[in-house]
Amino acid sequence: MRTGRFITFEGIDGSGKTTQARALAERLRAAGRDVLLTREPGGSPGAEEIRRLLVQGDASRWSAETEILLFTAARRDHLEKTVEPALIAGSTVISDRFADSTRVYQGAARGDLRALVDRLHDAMIGTEPHLTLIIDVEPGAALARGLARNSGEDRFEDLGLAFQTRLATGFRALAREFPERCRLVDGNRDIDAIAAEVAALAQAALE
Amino acid sequence: MRTGRFITFEGIDGSGKTTQARALAERLRAAGRDVLLTREPGGSPGAEEIRRLLVQGDASRWSAETEILLFTAARRDHLEKTVEPALIAGSTVISDRFADSTRVYQGAARGDLRALVDRLHDAMIGTEPHLTLIIDVEPGAALARGLARNSGEDRFEDLGLAFQTRLATGFRALAREFPERCRLVDGNRDIDAIAAEVAALAQAALE
Repeated sequence: MRTGRFITFEGIDGSGKTTQARALAERLRAAGRDVLLTREPGGSPGAEEIRRLLVQGDASRWSAETEILLFTAARRDHLEKTVEPALIAGSTVISDRFADSTRVYQGAARGDLRALVDRLHDAMIGTEPHLTLIIDVEPGAALARGLARNSGEDRFEDLGLAFQTRLATGFRALAREFPERCRLVDGNRDIDAIAAEVAALAQAALE
Repeated sequence: MRTGRFITFEGIDGSGKTTQARALAERLRAAGRDVLLTREPGGSPGAEEIRRLLVQGDASRWSAETEILLFTAARRDHLEKTVEPALIAGSTVISDRFADSTRVYQGAARGDLRALVDRLHDAMIGTEPHLTLIIDVEPGAALARGLARNSGEDRFEDLGLAFQTRLATGFRALAREFPERCRLVDGNRDIDAIAAEVAALAQAALE
């Protein structure tokens, strides 16, 4: 039985969600919780191998459909090898991105493939987080932050401001679609103010 | 519009299907046809990258479900980049393995996942060959041949005779399930006798 809780962070690149995921993990650990901090794509050795196919090399060498299959394969491995065992052990699992990223990136922003994303998710994944924190920021600022980072994995950032804006709109729509588990957090504030709201929302979900 | 014909070869490792696929390609080319000879997993640059995840390294690092997703991702890329363009150009496409391998290897022989394989195939692939030649051989002889080859890609061969026998049984069941496109060819004969029957069956399908 899974007794742990599953919290995901979502948002566009440069939204600050990785920083917030780390801050929440530290805060919960300081409060005595057993926390597993993970990320997608990746989060298990097999999924990290698949991640390399997705984030390295020419972004246009996969069609949106093949990309959805690869993201779903990585997610299935991540779920089996990392997330599920931790939830069964009673840990709090915090993941930087999960299925909502595929819903928005491949399902909405790169052509209308949401129905296909949902079919694959239902067949191969099924699991939903208990709480999803969507860090909502002004796309122009996020894009500048993401590009400044120069991680070598700028697949989507290369696609420009119009695309980042479509993504941000997609995440907001998702928050409306799944109101029971999604919370939209204003990420245009200083880091500590955002972290305080994130902690309060997580605390409510963990009680 | 796809004016070309799509022929696939299926069977267990060591069945001689690769030899027969090559022989048919040569024979059809000698008769003046434009032939594309390809294989799965692989057959396009992206699918070959995915193939490396599947055939190299520890065979047990992927669950059957993740494996099905990776094979389907590779197939989707192979179909988009290699098979479909050739069929549209009017070529005869001969593939050494295609969707039937996933139906048998992952769908039947590694747990009862055939329904899942079918869901993914319907959602992401759809295409079926015009003709599928299943080279049917005695599993013990095929296993000895496969192991002698020592290709470094012996994932399934490592699983032994009982598994090879389940696969051979699975391919025979497939021939009964899809009688309109599948032909079971007795592969326990000398190469030329098999090639003559393969050529006759292909000729009938190409007319």
